[in-house]
Amino acid sequence: MPPAYKRLNKDDCVFLFIDHQTGLIQLVHDFEPNEFKNNVLGLIKVADYFKVPTILTSSFETGPNGPLVKELQDSLPNATVIPRPGQINAMDNEDFAQAVKKSGKKQVVISGVLTEVCVAFPALSLIEQGYDIFVVTDASGTFAEHSREAAHKRMVQAGCQLLNWAAVSSELHGDWRNDVAGFCGIWRDHVPGYWCLMQSYESSVKNANR
Amino acid sequence: MPPAYKRLNKDDCVFLFIDHQTGLIQLVHDFEPNEFKNNVLGLIKVADYFKVPTILTSSFETGPNGPLVKELQDSLPNATVIPRPGQINAMDNEDFAQAVKKSGKKQVVISGVLTEVCVAFPALSLIEQGYDIFVVTDASGTFAEHSREAAHKRMVQAGCQLLNWAAVSSELHGDWRNDVAGFCGIWRDHVPGYWCLMQSYESSVKNANR
Amino acid sequence: MPPAYKRLNKDDCVFLFIDHQTGLIQLVHDFEPNEFKNNVLGLIKVADYFKVPTILTSSFETGPNGPLVKELQDSLPNATVIPRPGQINAMDNEDFAQAVKKSGKKQVVISGVLTEVCVAFPALSLIEQGYDIFVVTDASGTFAEHSREAAHKRMVQAGCQLLNWAAVSSELHGDWRNDVAGFCGIWRDHVPGYWCLMQSYESSVKNANR
Amino acid sequence: MPPAYKRLNKDDCVFLFIDHQTGLIQLVHDFEPNEFKNNVLGLIKVADYFKVPTILTSSFETGPNGPLVKELQDSLPNATVIPRPGQINAMDNEDFAQAVKKSGKKQVVISGVLTEVCVAFPALSLIEQGYDIFVVTDASGTFAEHSREAAHKRMVQAGCQLLNWAAVSSELHGDWRNDVAGFCGIWRDHVPGYWCLMQSYESSVKNANR
Amino acid sequence: MPPAYKRLNKDDCVFLFIDHQTGLIQLVHDFEPNEFKNNVLGLIKVADYFKVPTILTSSFETGPNGPLVKELQDSLPNATVIPRPGQINAMDNEDFAQAVKKSGKKQVVISGVLTEVCVAFPALSLIEQGYDIFVVTDASGTFAEHSREAAHKRMVQAGCQLLNWAAVSSELHGDWRNDVAGFCGIWRDHVPGYWCLMQSYESSVKNANR
Amino acid sequence: MPPAYKRLNKDDCVFLFIDHQTGLIQLVHDFEPNEFKNNVLGLIKVADYFKVPTILTSSFETGPNGPLVKELQDSLPNATVIPRPGQINAMDNEDFAQAVKKSGKKQVVISGVLTEVCVAFPALSLIEQGYDIFVVTDASGTFAEHSREAAHKRMVQAGCQLLNWAAVSSELHGDWRNDVAGFCGIWRDHVPGYWCLMQSYESSVKNANR
Amino acid sequence: MPPAYKRLNKDDCVFLFIDHQTGLIQLVHDFEPNEFKNNVLGLIKVADYFKVPTILTSSFETGPNGPLVKELQDSLPNATVIPRPGQINAMDNEDFAQAVKKSGKKQVVISGVLTEVCVAFPALSLIEQGYDIFVVTDASGTFAEHSREAAHKRMVQAGCQLLNWAAVSSELHGDWRNDVAGFCGIWRDHVPGYWCLMQSYESSVKNANR
Amino acid sequence: MPPAYKRLNKDDCVFLFIDHQTGLIQLVHDFEPNEFKNNVLGLIKVADYFKVPTILTSSFETGPNGPLVKELQDSLPNATVIPRPGQINAMDNEDFAQAVKKSGKKQVVISGVLTEVCVAFPALSLIEQGYDIFVVTDASGTFAEHSREAAHKRMVQAGCQLLNWAAVSSELHGDWRNDVAGFCGIWRDHVPGYWCLMQSYESSVKNANR
Repeated sequence: MPPAYKRLNKDDCVFLFIDHQTGLIQLVHDFEPNEFKNNVLGLIKVADYFKVPTILTSSFETGPNGPLVKELQDSLPNATVIPRPGQINAMDNEDFAQAVKKSGKKQVVISGVLTEVCVAFPALSLIEQGYDIFVVTDASGTFAEHSREAAHKRMVQAGCQLLNWAAVSSELHGDWRNDVAGFCGIWRDHVPGYWCLMQSYESSVKNANR
Repeated sequence: MPPAYKRLNKDDCVFLFIDHQTGLIQLVHDFEPNEFKNNVLGLIKVADYFKVPTILTSSFETGPNGPLVKELQDSLPNATVIPRPGQINAMDNEDFAQAVKKSGKKQVVISGVLTEVCVAFPALSLIEQGYDIFVVTDASGTFAEHSREAAHKRMVQAGCQLLNWAAVSSELHGDWRNDVAGFCGIWRDHVPGYWCLMQSYESSVKNANR
Repeated sequence: MPPAYKRLNKDDCVFLFIDHQTGLIQLVHDFEPNEFKNNVLGLIKVADYFKVPTILTSSFETGPNGPLVKELQDSLPNATVIPRPGQINAMDNEDFAQAVKKSGKKQVVISGVLTEVCVAFPALSLIEQGYDIFVVTDASGTFAEHSREAAHKRMVQAGCQLLNWAAVSSELHGDWRNDVAGFCGIWRDHVPGYWCLMQSYESSVKNANR
Repeated sequence: MPPAYKRLNKDDCVFLFIDHQTGLIQLVHDFEPNEFKNNVLGLIKVADYFKVPTILTSSFETGPNGPLVKELQDSLPNATVIPRPGQINAMDNEDFAQAVKKSGKKQVVISGVLTEVCVAFPALSLIEQGYDIFVVTDASGTFAEHSREAAHKRMVQAGCQLLNWAAVSSELHGDWRNDVAGFCGIWRDHVPGYWCLMQSYESSVKNANR
Repeated sequence: MPPAYKRLNKDDCVFLFIDHQTGLIQLVHDFEPNEFKNNVLGLIKVADYFKVPTILTSSFETGPNGPLVKELQDSLPNATVIPRPGQINAMDNEDFAQAVKKSGKKQVVISGVLTEVCVAFPALSLIEQGYDIFVVTDASGTFAEHSREAAHKRMVQAGCQLLNWAAVSSELHGDWRNDVAGFCGIWRDHVPGYWCLMQSYESSVKNANR
Repeated sequence: MPPAYKRLNKDDCVFLFIDHQTGLIQLVHDFEPNEFKNNVLGLIKVADYFKVPTILTSSFETGPNGPLVKELQDSLPNATVIPRPGQINAMDNEDFAQAVKKSGKKQVVISGVLTEVCVAFPALSLIEQGYDIFVVTDASGTFAEHSREAAHKRMVQAGCQLLNWAAVSSELHGDWRNDVAGFCGIWRDHVPGYWCLMQSYESSVKNANR
Repeated sequence: MPPAYKRLNKDDCVFLFIDHQTGLIQLVHDFEPNEFKNNVLGLIKVADYFKVPTILTSSFETGPNGPLVKELQDSLPNATVIPRPGQINAMDNEDFAQAVKKSGKKQVVISGVLTEVCVAFPALSLIEQGYDIFVVTDASGTFAEHSREAAHKRMVQAGCQLLNWAAVSSELHGDWRNDVAGFCGIWRDHVPGYWCLMQSYESSVKNANR
Repeated sequence: MPPAYKRLNKDDCVFLFIDHQTGLIQLVHDFEPNEFKNNVLGLIKVADYFKVPTILTSSFETGPNGPLVKELQDSLPNATVIPRPGQINAMDNEDFAQAVKKSGKKQVVISGVLTEVCVAFPALSLIEQGYDIFVVTDASGTFAEHSREAAHKRMVQAGCQLLNWAAVSSELHGDWRNDVAGFCGIWRDHVPGYWCLMQSYESSVKNANR
């Protein structure tokens, strides 16, 4: 029997942002800092754009790990925020586990820092409970590429699906006709190179109409 | 029971070229531009050489994504061309889905830009319907190597097979005796380094015959 | 005799942005697209912040090279803009050469696309006329790292100085006390990783003051 | 049925350090020497911190392979040490196999040099006997990245889980409240960049309290 | 049920060298030429050392592909040699398929050029027939790393095992005591860095004995 | 005194292609094969386009080094061709040295294989005789990037200028108005990415005119 | 006239550590964090070992840049420490400039973060005043390799010498017989791979003496 | 006045091999181990082939640095060997300095481990004394590429010339007709890829003569 296509759907998903804290992000070395910032901000805009339920969690915000990047709460004011007193695996935190459950969604879009710890542990816990897991690979970071690769292999082995933020946004959007302008704005600002592609196009249209 | 070898066969396959558009191709950064151009042109010649049914599709050709590279339609004048009004996953477009079905082929050779969106989404849709999927890895591109890797893992997990354009051509050809000259011409022009290998050889034959 | 330190000074310099056009920028492959965009936008803000005279030039804006990135003219409304009808070396364009001369500055801060053509040619022309040349290495791009390296060697050989946009901004600013807030804003938004560093700090101050 | 999350637990695991010998380590070229040293020393501290049963083994310590790095025995004085007279696969050594069995643990945390030989062979032997295998990817080394990748694929195929030393330490610790100071000390010294993160934080606290 | 460890055994295996021809090897760009040469010669010595049945095959030796590297036939004079008149997949050649069958071995150690064609195709054919396949990853080459990676994923998906020549030699040898000197000679000459390790050791022994 | 800008001029220059032979080119590993082929063919077209005097030389064409790539003689039928009987430094060959002298040009545009031998030796000989040397960095190749870098440093130290084929073409052309179509054709076919840029543009013009 | 060898001498030199602050170090991405930490700590030990006069300086220690890494002051308690109120170029700070002058040394060994700003600016200022400048390349960091390379070219152009911390230590030490044990301890702990080399050696001596 | 071409000449040169010791070579990480071994062995054969005076030196051969690689003395039995009791810069050793002087040669071909210490220090000492220095870049090694690059810049600044072993051999040989067979043998064994080029050629000659 051919495998089912577990396809992201904006009515069935919840977004988890785990430990995107300003201190921890400085440990990220498997992406260049500008690239990682771009990806995290792009994913935040996607969460906002589709108005999907979102849960933010952090650990030790008043310590060296630093606070959640403020763009998270600025852009997602309705997100549930759960500071964890100590649990490393967010799913070990009762409030967090409840929040996921209460969302009533079956598809979990997860990202975080560090990939092999803060993303992989709850991903493995959640898949065990029957959720479909979508790991946002380029909005999750760690201190070395080989660590990312090992984490990806562990999660794939357990059945998690890997995709980047651009694929998340596209699978959720489905059809450009749903709204060209708004969606395109996210791509223009965050897909590498798209700003120039669009400016070139807009200019050629303007020139032709002269 | 040992796994069956799902082997490409020129009588059983259809080629899909998805969104190889001149704007989108400029976003490709997981291959150097010359290398990607070489691979896409090589695959086009393969499609032409084996006269397999081919379907081309594009999205928003009059916008920043740009038109399909003209080599596609120049070399494959008999291909079915389906501009999509907005669907991101080509298989969500009824005409495209029908065209694949109407081809009557069970093996789908798919390539496109961006890998994790325009290739992965229809690949996952098609494999769910029982097709055998062959992803042409080096004629599909995206904006970062890590995005390609994540897309590959997702597609492999679902049962897609990965191979480059040279493997596609070889598996279809089967035996060099079917036609040395024509097939060799594609390799000479597109397999990296083969032009010099052949010129060296031809020269040594000529020298010996003097 | 020890060498003089030719030091950038905001009263003595003129900025040249050469051919930062939306089409040409898509050819840049010696920087990742996000990184290059960040650097160009950072340098634009530096030009604006120090209110130094600035000259913009472009070639064939209505053709495939595309228009100047609109952020250039949006942020630098007082810049002199000189579209070149065909000269590849901007210094071969009489208006451009005059504009540089009329600026009355001795120090030239130059950036552009492609590095080995649009930057190197005028840089070599100007240094021959006795100007001090400062090439902004990370806001200038070309299609391969080896091409950048060759261009750098040619320009250094002729006596040009190389530095990135952050060094340009620092050498011009000289002393943080001149204005912490405004200058810091540019670094926060464009020096890789500085956003998180600042958010961490601001958070720890806030926490301590509770 | 969703897959079970095989989760490391400090009461259920045994650590195997295989052939971390001073000669063999000099063959490691898939990590930079400083990075590999850091990872091995970090993992040793983790073994010590959690007081898990540990087995060390070596081959030909008096020959070119060299002795076990002395930090192993200095930090883990209670570890079982089994010099192998010749067996390449440690599990072919009766004493070693017995030692693993006698530990009574079901989870095996394995690292060593060379990854594709000294780690992969016993890992495959042990998984066949029903153990859960956790390969510490960054405390295992070989002479080329492509060799590491091949070894990882072979072990994943057999069901081994891959994770780095930081993930091992986190999964074992579970909750920072179990002991912040001690555990944090390992991270400060061995997670890349954490030393500066902690010094920044401690300083800002001190400044605020003045 | 835990997975069986399919372990190479010198009494059960046959070595296949496919198209290691002097022309084709010049197309290999996923390894540096020195490294690839070293690996192929190392594997040849392993085949010779263990006296396992070996089958060599080539295609179009008198054309641009060139002859089999002469070290193959010089070192393995008893190998079966099967020039293929045109079949790309060696298993499509009746003589070759018969030779494998006649060897009476169940484990197939396969290497060749190009990885995704000359190795992958017969590997997939053989695994379908119930053989255990061991792909020697570093004695097989192609023109790009991404092509190698795609080929590996396709073969792993079908159940092939990946390992480098050093792992092949170690799994076959099993115990260094079987013969230290001979086996060690192969490692000294071909494992990167081992020559210096051994010379250092021999020197320190000599010094101590003075 | 500011340095003079030694600027390439199509009336003052001669092109030397040294040992671009089909065997030697297969040794080139500091560029990917496709990229190097593209650069060499691009430079040949530049030589043809500007109708500058051109000298081709080769060594041992009937041996393993192979013949000059046939595109050289096909595209440059009027070039002087000097097979060298054995001299490694082409300038040690009296006929070659005379041919350069007889060209009456002062600017020498030199490229070849291997960079550190066939390019560097005559470059150093010629600069000693007072010629201005322009080394085409990306149409010259060798077996490792570090060898290229060392060769570049040696040549720069002696006063040679480094530039890529695109810079050569631009410095010679000077002004696009001299001929847009012909010159642009070379860029479209050989500047990485330019083919898509131009197709995008042409399409937008066509769309606008509908 | 042959160039003089400006050779580091422990009686003639002063060490400058500029802005090795815990926040700024987190911006360093041209070295892996572990490698950079190792190099900075190695250089600190060298300064301590040779008891050369040392000047530390920092900017905005109470802000996001963070404090000087505490290892600096812990290991170098006699160093002069000069917090700068705002000057970016340390030589613009009167106290710092005086401290360098008062040291009475002619050779300046300089390192810092960011390379192109905090190292390059004072290096260029000092060389103008007739000092010999030795830039410690691997204990100075910035956010991208290309920025480091540009900074190196600018400093070399002005006559600065580049060398890593190991070369600094060796040039100062001159002769191992001055003190094997102490000096060797620094190398064992900080030259990549030296720990294993020494443990192998010590073990072989011990074995031989049994 | 154009610069003189300082050209290696076999009658005017002396070869220095400095500290190619089996322990130190294991620290080399700016080349892959196989590549570095190949280059060192290639250079040894060049020294032997041209029968140039050669001086070998080592430091602490009975300690962790290990003995000189035995291929040096095996292949160059007439070389002068000078063990240094402690001097780091070989030119500080009176015997070594005398040996160089006594050679009566003006051109010094130098290689060693570590590049920035054992090569750079004597190179700078010798150039000060008026020798012409030729640094063999690929037979000299250190622990990181950035350290090599810094060392190269320092030596070039002082006027040393950089070239790889292949360029050394070619400049000394001058004309292939001096002896094709012997010289070619070195290239066949050590120039990457040349073995296959030659075997292809020899085969095509043989085929043609049938």
